[in-house]
Amino acid sequence: MATIALLTDFGTRDPYVAAMKGVIASRCDARIADLTHEIAPFDVFGAAFFLRDVVPYWPPGTIFVAVIDPGVGTSRRIVAAQHDGRTFLAPDNGVLSLVIGRAAVPAAGPVASRRRPPAVSVQNESFFLPNGSTTFHGRDRFAPVAAAIANGTALSELGPPIDDLVHLDYTPPSYGDGRAEGTIIAVDRFGNLITDIEAAKIAFAPVLRAGSHVVDRVEQNYGDAKRGAFLIVGSTGCLEVSVANGSAADVLQLGRGERVSIVTK
Amino acid sequence: MATIALLTDFGTRDPYVAAMKGVIASRCDARIADLTHEIAPFDVFGAAFFLRDVVPYWPPGTIFVAVIDPGVGTSRRIVAAQHDGRTFLAPDNGVLSLVIGRAAVPAAGPVASRRRPPAVSVQNESFFLPNGSTTFHGRDRFAPVAAAIANGTALSELGPPIDDLVHLDYTPPSYGDGRAEGTIIAVDRFGNLITDIEAAKIAFAPVLRAGSHVVDRVEQNYGDAKRGAFLIVGSTGCLEVSVANGSAADVLQLGRGERVSIVTK
Amino acid sequence: MATIALLTDFGTRDPYVAAMKGVIASRCDARIADLTHEIAPFDVFGAAFFLRDVVPYWPPGTIFVAVIDPGVGTSRRIVAAQHDGRTFLAPDNGVLSLVIGRAAVPAAGPVASRRRPPAVSVQNESFFLPNGSTTFHGRDRFAPVAAAIANGTALSELGPPIDDLVHLDYTPPSYGDGRAEGTIIAVDRFGNLITDIEAAKIAFAPVLRAGSHVVDRVEQNYGDAKRGAFLIVGSTGCLEVSVANGSAADVLQLGRGERVSIVTK
Repeated sequence: MATIALLTDFGTRDPYVAAMKGVIASRCDARIADLTHEIAPFDVFGAAFFLRDVVPYWPPGTIFVAVIDPGVGTSRRIVAAQHDGRTFLAPDNGVLSLVIGRAAVPAAGPVASRRRPPAVSVQNESFFLPNGSTTFHGRDRFAPVAAAIANGTALSELGPPIDDLVHLDYTPPSYGDGRAEGTIIAVDRFGNLITDIEAAKIAFAPVLRAGSHVVDRVEQNYGDAKRGAFLIVGSTGCLEVSVANGSAADVLQLGRGERVSIVTK
Repeated sequence: MATIALLTDFGTRDPYVAAMKGVIASRCDARIADLTHEIAPFDVFGAAFFLRDVVPYWPPGTIFVAVIDPGVGTSRRIVAAQHDGRTFLAPDNGVLSLVIGRAAVPAAGPVASRRRPPAVSVQNESFFLPNGSTTFHGRDRFAPVAAAIANGTALSELGPPIDDLVHLDYTPPSYGDGRAEGTIIAVDRFGNLITDIEAAKIAFAPVLRAGSHVVDRVEQNYGDAKRGAFLIVGSTGCLEVSVANGSAADVLQLGRGERVSIVTK
Repeated sequence: MATIALLTDFGTRDPYVAAMKGVIASRCDARIADLTHEIAPFDVFGAAFFLRDVVPYWPPGTIFVAVIDPGVGTSRRIVAAQHDGRTFLAPDNGVLSLVIGRAAVPAAGPVASRRRPPAVSVQNESFFLPNGSTTFHGRDRFAPVAAAIANGTALSELGPPIDDLVHLDYTPPSYGDGRAEGTIIAVDRFGNLITDIEAAKIAFAPVLRAGSHVVDRVEQNYGDAKRGAFLIVGSTGCLEVSVANGSAADVLQLGRGERVSIVTK
């Protein structure tokens, strides 16, 4: 039985997710998994990083459906793509950048081109709900197309191949001699400030600078940490700023998008 | 395998939904689907519209259990009903009005009567948990009865037939010559003001009046819309007021229950 | 098919629960059930009472995974235990106290010892994800171990037996002649103040005293109750303070942890 894993910014208070699930349940026998529906409204960036952190842990064959879709009903494309044995369905707005991004862009030359994972622009209306809306493609297009994929429909039946996926507006971290520059890419429920700087690429005792703050203590876990802000290698392998029994975001008054530097002591 | 779809106002922070699911899992092999548990406490009206927007998308055979139950433990009835191949279990407080409402009320005469869908008052205590509470029928009555239905129990075994379901306190929209009157029946997560006025019944360029506000711009989708409030045909086919990249509810300071008029330009 | 029931303080906004579910789905074919992910951060006490109220309603064979884990990455143990046909996996911080607590503590002597349910300290790293983090054992240890249990792994393969589980810091209620002393152990979404005083142990007309408040009215259900605060026997059999169509927590300005007395009229 296929698994369809849903990621949206719809919340669960409104009928949107429940309608999507009904369409899926009406059209296939897949297992439906909720990744989250609590992406902030229109937050393509947050959804892209959520997928980055989650997708590798799901089994091959999983069908990921990401509906963070501020452009619903406009000329923005819906894309379906395959990568590492998993299938992705999403608006073409960069939300898939961190899971299939580079891979889906063909390098020059025929060999690279043959290797690139298939991506298509979903245009075959026979897979959509009839008389669908312009405001809720989650229900009228994404859900029935996901069900079709679960039922074995090939991506090539959904629409023409494309190789120009929209990319996320995001500057990756840079690593230099005794220095790295990056960004706080998420603040989690516990108030941890999660950067995109990979700890494995820092070969020195790190000191983080962000705004007027300097954090130079490194801890191995939350529970043994003493008072105040400290650096820790988080669950994605990137550096995080934490505060024991408190919220680093509150204490340091920092948030997503803030630039950070890692320097030597 | 049957699907039991749950709709409650219990939230997910307290143990109520998890206890209900345990009872269901203990008594049948149905798939359990969460429609939502974020209906505002006691909000029968909101739950009725949620069901209206969701039920038609679920497959025949689905068992809907709606526990928004301010009268739990009083003499209010529990009803089970069938309509369009689906089964509904809920307190008799109007929550089912918009999905089986009119259909469950027999018209005069034997033919209409024979056609009306079966509805029963659930009274057979052998299907309830023993020594149940007066405060949590979701766990002690709704869950085990839903499991019994999933196991093939006929509604007629649950209790005597009834034909006087309680109806929702709700004035449907009215349509006149160049004019319609309706209500804002929901405000969604994005701040869209959702009316009950069907766009297909408006044969003229619509202007919405609500309080001191006048909205006369119509857009086809959210993404291409320019600044300010506009009208759009929402995913249920009814008129909505939206604001591009913002909340119409915040900008216009309007909310659920507000009366609106549609007039010609 | 086994059911793995998840209880965490991770919320659903961050990628943590979705990553755990991916690991489980990658390694076994169990059904995954969400008990809740809305336990307040680090609230071991709240999670322990949640489990107390929910576990008995789930069928034997259910695998409960409780990840409220302020000590993640420290020397705190991970424990797996069996009790009443169900399996539990949690950090050894007292979160299981109210479902297996006393039972897992061996009484003196060989007979009681043989009868006690098996509990082990989970130390066999071959069941963990390789190269796991020190900050997210939910994904790197609890999820793969739960999958292993679902696949039939015996607890004895996970690590050595233990008989000294950490207990919750909690004073149980006391019952005297015409008097009982207890605690408000939860405030639910509806604002009900839920005590740990069992109604069945009160053989007199109860009057509750909490702070400067006296509540001496007893009601049988919420719906028929008149204005003001009243006592009611809640769904766990314990006394609760409620307010009709309102929040007792707001009206009385009382919260969790508050001591309460029950006295005679």
